[in-house]
Amino acid sequence: MTVRMKIAVDAMGGDNAPQTVVEGVERARDEYSDLEFILFGKKSEIKSYLKSEVHIKIVHTDEVISMNDEPVKAIRTKKNSSMVLAAKAVKDKEADAFFSCGNTGALLAAGLLIVGRIKGISRPGLLSTLPVLSGDGSGAFNLLDSGANAENKPEHLHQYAILGKYYAQRVRGIKNPRIGLLNNGTEPHKGSKVTQEAYQLLNTDDTLNFVGNVEANAILKGAADVVVADGFTGNAVLKAIEGAASAMIHLLKNMIMDSGLTGKLGAMLLKSSLSGLKDKMDQSRYGGAVLLGVKAPVVKAHGASDDAAVYYTLRQIHKMLVEKMTPDLVSYFSHKG
Amino acid sequence: MTVRMKIAVDAMGGDNAPQTVVEGVERARDEYSDLEFILFGKKSEIKSYLKSEVHIKIVHTDEVISMNDEPVKAIRTKKNSSMVLAAKAVKDKEADAFFSCGNTGALLAAGLLIVGRIKGISRPGLLSTLPVLSGDGSGAFNLLDSGANAENKPEHLHQYAILGKYYAQRVRGIKNPRIGLLNNGTEPHKGSKVTQEAYQLLNTDDTLNFVGNVEANAILKGAADVVVADGFTGNAVLKAIEGAASAMIHLLKNMIMDSGLTGKLGAMLLKSSLSGLKDKMDQSRYGGAVLLGVKAPVVKAHGASDDAAVYYTLRQIHKMLVEKMTPDLVSYFSHKG
Repeated sequence: MTVRMKIAVDAMGGDNAPQTVVEGVERARDEYSDLEFILFGKKSEIKSYLKSEVHIKIVHTDEVISMNDEPVKAIRTKKNSSMVLAAKAVKDKEADAFFSCGNTGALLAAGLLIVGRIKGISRPGLLSTLPVLSGDGSGAFNLLDSGANAENKPEHLHQYAILGKYYAQRVRGIKNPRIGLLNNGTEPHKGSKVTQEAYQLLNTDDTLNFVGNVEANAILKGAADVVVADGFTGNAVLKAIEGAASAMIHLLKNMIMDSGLTGKLGAMLLKSSLSGLKDKMDQSRYGGAVLLGVKAPVVKAHGASDDAAVYYTLRQIHKMLVEKMTPDLVSYFSHKG
Repeated sequence: MTVRMKIAVDAMGGDNAPQTVVEGVERARDEYSDLEFILFGKKSEIKSYLKSEVHIKIVHTDEVISMNDEPVKAIRTKKNSSMVLAAKAVKDKEADAFFSCGNTGALLAAGLLIVGRIKGISRPGLLSTLPVLSGDGSGAFNLLDSGANAENKPEHLHQYAILGKYYAQRVRGIKNPRIGLLNNGTEPHKGSKVTQEAYQLLNTDDTLNFVGNVEANAILKGAADVVVADGFTGNAVLKAIEGAASAMIHLLKNMIMDSGLTGKLGAMLLKSSLSGLKDKMDQSRYGGAVLLGVKAPVVKAHGASDDAAVYYTLRQIHKMLVEKMTPDLVSYFSHKG
């Protein structure tokens, strides 16, 4: 008998839930025979989109955490919400990982308060994957903490380097990931007290391939495989990059629309290049944002995820589970403590 | 007799100095009859590019601060450098403003240590102007501190709001500039201790048109006219936006180059739209970065500035001088103290 890995899915999170969630889950189920899914949410709605229940269990609940709910309060009061029940399934070892496209703050709170921190980890951090915008266009880098914390100490940044290293090795297959510290200059003495101290911690940890300080423009050119930052700056940089990229695509479209017949003809001929640029900026192919430092994979896909984005994220979770990333992190930090 | 305003120019700063500096100065001299210039640098080199010495004085020096010099050390030891002499001219009231395309750190040090802080200002901040990437494409916003400081207290951010407001009013002609606080969420309670306290200071200052917290993606859509941030985050966001924009233009170019004959034909037909996009991202038309909170306009243009960028920056300085921005800031903060 095959022992399958189980993913607890908040089927009601996201703009297009449960439809795109169900479709993405079925795609992952059809591809990975070693996966099973528990879908939490409105049974009749879920069933109306589900083609087959093979390896899929539905746990009915009417309660849903909305995008506007205050995260910590929602986790504490909406005990029967699809998100809380999915997180609880992981806590109770009924599932091995937790996935949602819903309220990010609530997912972080569920990860921290329900799934729980790995012993030895002070402040779990959110890892995002971003495209490298140079070279052949296949590159990517991880940024953490990209927003789980509003403030971080140097020791947290050191832990993010280790967490990010494990992720880059196990999920992205990078043997010796280059770790960079996000800073306002490349020289070792640069930055705030936090980054100056973090530099020392990273630089003296021989287990890390530390490449030094990296600036926010250099990370887009692939200066490091894993970029470590405090959650406030990491979040601001993530949003600035996403915002600039999407605004530029939008602006280019408008300029083409206003450019008359010649311009429109040009855009038609260039269609593949322009959509290539858009695809390049589409982060969903890398999967979702991962809360690292908790006892199981806790992963958030974008609220606007389509079925493909859901599928990519489940593929990413599958990889984390197969590669035993979390158990090995637990073991690493228990030996440190 | 006309009393002309004098700008002290570090003629040797920047990649194309002194040629582009001299050319930009002459263009500004020809346009503004109320301006005079003192050019500091290698006299023979400067003269070889200069068409006319009307309203232009040259002060010869051989010493130059390079892009690789350690800023504070350079200011302290290279006493006869073109940058230090230009800053000293302002300190000694021989000039009303100080301009350079050279080493940013050295310019900041010269501004702080030689020109000096306005009484009542704790930590002068660097103001940058960035394009709003939505609407008709004519919008812009100011971001400060964009990198003069590695750490800031809430009171500094409050002062940046006031400094930025004066700049937006006097230079950009915005009557009641919308002030936003860069944060990791829009709700009032969001952020670090610094942003939470800064929020309170800004929100209770009735002289400010405070629009609340703004996120790094929203500022590109024009969420505020003046965006206030600590220098570490402001610097990271500035570099992330610049980096993402320039990388995307680069990526688009590569994709067009690789797209075969059809794609290249399309690009030809779209040429005006594509160069429009590039122009939109060209910050030089807004002038340079301004160190606000010191006793005179201290302005830095990009090291790669062409003559037009130098001219735009001198036009920006002219506006600050004509509008008496600095004297009015001095007066405002002396009444506060």
